[in-house]
Amino acid sequence: MSNFLQSYSTLQKSFLPETFAISSPAEIEAALQEASAAFIPFAKKTFIERAVFLETIAEEIMNGGDALLQKAQEETALPMARLTGERGRTCTQLNLYAKLLREGNWCDAVIDTAMPERQPLPRADLRRMLQPIGPVLVFGASNFPFAYSTAGGDTASALAAGCPVIVKAHESHLGTNAIVAAAVIRAAEKTKMPKGVFATLVGTGPVLGQQLAMDERIKAIGFTGSYKAGMALYTTATQKRKTPIPVYAEMSSINPVVLLPQILAEKTSAIATALAGSISLGVGQFCTSPGLLFAIDDAAAKNFAQELVTALKAVAPATMLNPTICKTYYNDKTSLASSENIQVLYDGDNLEENHQAMPSLMQTTAAHFIAIPALQNEVFGPCSLLVLCKDVEEMNAAIASMEGQLTGSIFGQEQELKANQNLIDQLQQAVGRMIFNNVPTGVEVCNAIVHGGPFPATTDARTTSVGPEAIRRFARPVCYQDCPDALLPLYLRNENEANILRLINGVLTKASV
Amino acid sequence: MSNFLQSYSTLQKSFLPETFAISSPAEIEAALQEASAAFIPFAKKTFIERAVFLETIAEEIMNGGDALLQKAQEETALPMARLTGERGRTCTQLNLYAKLLREGNWCDAVIDTAMPERQPLPRADLRRMLQPIGPVLVFGASNFPFAYSTAGGDTASALAAGCPVIVKAHESHLGTNAIVAAAVIRAAEKTKMPKGVFATLVGTGPVLGQQLAMDERIKAIGFTGSYKAGMALYTTATQKRKTPIPVYAEMSSINPVVLLPQILAEKTSAIATALAGSISLGVGQFCTSPGLLFAIDDAAAKNFAQELVTALKAVAPATMLNPTICKTYYNDKTSLASSENIQVLYDGDNLEENHQAMPSLMQTTAAHFIAIPALQNEVFGPCSLLVLCKDVEEMNAAIASMEGQLTGSIFGQEQELKANQNLIDQLQQAVGRMIFNNVPTGVEVCNAIVHGGPFPATTDARTTSVGPEAIRRFARPVCYQDCPDALLPLYLRNENEANILRLINGVLTKASV
Repeated sequence: MSNFLQSYSTLQKSFLPETFAISSPAEIEAALQEASAAFIPFAKKTFIERAVFLETIAEEIMNGGDALLQKAQEETALPMARLTGERGRTCTQLNLYAKLLREGNWCDAVIDTAMPERQPLPRADLRRMLQPIGPVLVFGASNFPFAYSTAGGDTASALAAGCPVIVKAHESHLGTNAIVAAAVIRAAEKTKMPKGVFATLVGTGPVLGQQLAMDERIKAIGFTGSYKAGMALYTTATQKRKTPIPVYAEMSSINPVVLLPQILAEKTSAIATALAGSISLGVGQFCTSPGLLFAIDDAAAKNFAQELVTALKAVAPATMLNPTICKTYYNDKTSLASSENIQVLYDGDNLEENHQAMPSLMQTTAAHFIAIPALQNEVFGPCSLLVLCKDVEEMNAAIASMEGQLTGSIFGQEQELKANQNLIDQLQQAVGRMIFNNVPTGVEVCNAIVHGGPFPATTDARTTSVGPEAIRRFARPVCYQDCPDALLPLYLRNENEANILRLINGVLTKASV
Repeated sequence: MSNFLQSYSTLQKSFLPETFAISSPAEIEAALQEASAAFIPFAKKTFIERAVFLETIAEEIMNGGDALLQKAQEETALPMARLTGERGRTCTQLNLYAKLLREGNWCDAVIDTAMPERQPLPRADLRRMLQPIGPVLVFGASNFPFAYSTAGGDTASALAAGCPVIVKAHESHLGTNAIVAAAVIRAAEKTKMPKGVFATLVGTGPVLGQQLAMDERIKAIGFTGSYKAGMALYTTATQKRKTPIPVYAEMSSINPVVLLPQILAEKTSAIATALAGSISLGVGQFCTSPGLLFAIDDAAAKNFAQELVTALKAVAPATMLNPTICKTYYNDKTSLASSENIQVLYDGDNLEENHQAMPSLMQTTAAHFIAIPALQNEVFGPCSLLVLCKDVEEMNAAIASMEGQLTGSIFGQEQELKANQNLIDQLQQAVGRMIFNNVPTGVEVCNAIVHGGPFPATTDARTTSVGPEAIRRFARPVCYQDCPDALLPLYLRNENEANILRLINGVLTKASV
């Protein structure tokens, strides 16, 4: 076994020349030890200091300029416009958490002042706020070399919370990781963050990833990737370690789209066009790609299926992220197509040799969908399964049989939606985000977003990996009872120096105590 | 094997005559099916409707009158004053969650309105709030027949969140469970809650408890009890089920008390008296009982140990909750006493035959404490271990070697505390509640409380089981994208009919959209 890794370029159909040394045991131990030592000093930095750190990371990433974008394109085959946008989004995320820190309200400060005269017992002075959980292990995502990798959402929210971060570089974009990691480390130095606040290590998931997940100094894990890899981490984190830790693994989601009959009849073409675009967007390599469509088996559905096939046929072949994803796409698609009672409506050419993919559309009945759980297995890529239901009741049963999902879309006229409240309620049980009359791709970075959902979409439906709430994943509440004012964290002292909202004796206020 | 269970009275030293049929497979299936069917209708009740339900439960519990208190005393041997207080606390908790529901802010409503003109892409209308997670399985606690059992904190917070609850009755207080469960069911009927919103089942933990935890219809677990039972549930919930679910298990905590030298020299007697009271409170059967004391090995510590022994000697024998707890107390105490390098400073008489206990105090050195992890095993009962440290540095190392705890207390003069900030920081890493100059027993039910802490104190340090925040354990965020106003949950509609605080486009307001 060689002691280095190389990224593969699906565009160039070859390994890229740059080599990345596999982290040595000494390097791994140093990263863990330094992250652990950095924890308390980093946790004690003010929110403003951490905000400046995040803002400086964004600046340093932008300083990477075109060289960073070119490297990412070589390593992921993603179009330059997409990469430029994703880099922007990454900086937006960093700045969003910086803003959250500057406002300071995220820490949920609560103060109940002492009641020394209370009968039968006096009440102590009790104050609570969120505190960071400890060093966090982050796994880069293949499909988001910037926004969900080295300095992506998991890293940004963990650092914002006050947790040192160790990133296991994704093997597909090692060069991109190196450039972004260097930017983070420069920002840490410039803003005088403790040594060890950020590190990146190179190795394979099953070896390095598992080793890091087993280490007691790691206190939480952020992961985006396959069900298999996510569950391997989840098992390690919950069962193999001495101390179980939270795992935020975003794994598989097929993002059901429910098409009610009236709107489908009225807007057949528009819906088919929108879905074809969503299914093929980014060669289907989005966690919110619509892999499952429900319709009532009527004439409109038949027209819709035809129009969707037509629209998908017009989609040009496109290069996938890496050979493994491409190979898995063809394998999983073939496996689905060869399942009993699956009808292939359209299957693009096999371009695996070129690491390229074309869309695919299959069809089955609700009865089969309900009977065969394997039909819910994610096919990562531009493939979708149309499930035809006899009636709304069967549609409801099919939805009820579904595993957890990141999103659930429903297309319906307003009256039609109102008449199907039960169906909406049922769909809601399975998803983190309910979308009305639109496709699931496109995740807005805003306060109200939820990017998460019931298992197996994620291992923790109580959280979101996008938006300000993601910071809570890496924090826990700590209560201080009768703590002298000078020893309290800044945000809980009598004087509200940071000017944050605090719940004082039940009243939300920016006043001092 | 008989098909019924009986509670044992440690006061009467016999089984009580009343028999409780072990729930049949049909009863178990019915409870699960009804809880599952009740979920959506219950989740859709307004906060006010759920508040009225909780308030009515409190009323119905009070209607149980003295008969309930007497039954609880027969079954737990707890003093009447304590039981009266605990019943009051239980009703306070129910009313606290009712108040939270009436205010409505708990659901974290966030609204980002559409920006159709935004470039390059329009923004959809996105709204999010917390929604209930599904049917919750609650295990009653031996040591809190009211406040952490049938209608205790876990049940109250789960019902408040909108989750149906199935309670596995604690085998020690089956009669108390039956009376309280009947009160909850009467309240559910009076307030027209869906059938199945609450049920209680009778059986043993390893059989019934595991069977319920395995059932896919159960979506979260609340548990208070032993490490062994808690971890058995955690393993089932995270590894054995098809769908992993959250487990909020409060297990073992020995609640370290750090005694800094100056205050210990100045207030030797006062601290010894306070600690003797805390160690022996409720026969040491509190999860916050101080089982671990750290002091610098000096003359003051020697005086303190003597005074503590004197104070503990004055404590009268008291009856424990049940024979298993009593037997375990004697076993675990003996095991600790017979560990190498443990010095027994005081050990009360063996009154196991009477199901009674007297306090015990042991001593070791920090070096041994650090070297032997088993010295951290909880001895549930009035037993504490004094750890003598050579200096503050060794004290710090001993604290750093500790497992997670519910609480950490530190006694120090203000200047002394300031001079030992490192020690405070280290202690904070291990605990959910930091207490200054006071004992850990006594958990205030208020907004700022945290009753939780790092593993093995609990299986989820991100939460608290006491106070309003406990409701979040049973909820998850759901986002609605472009949802027609009439189909939105009441709390996310344009008109703020419920008059709750909402974050609208980044501004916290009670205004309508």
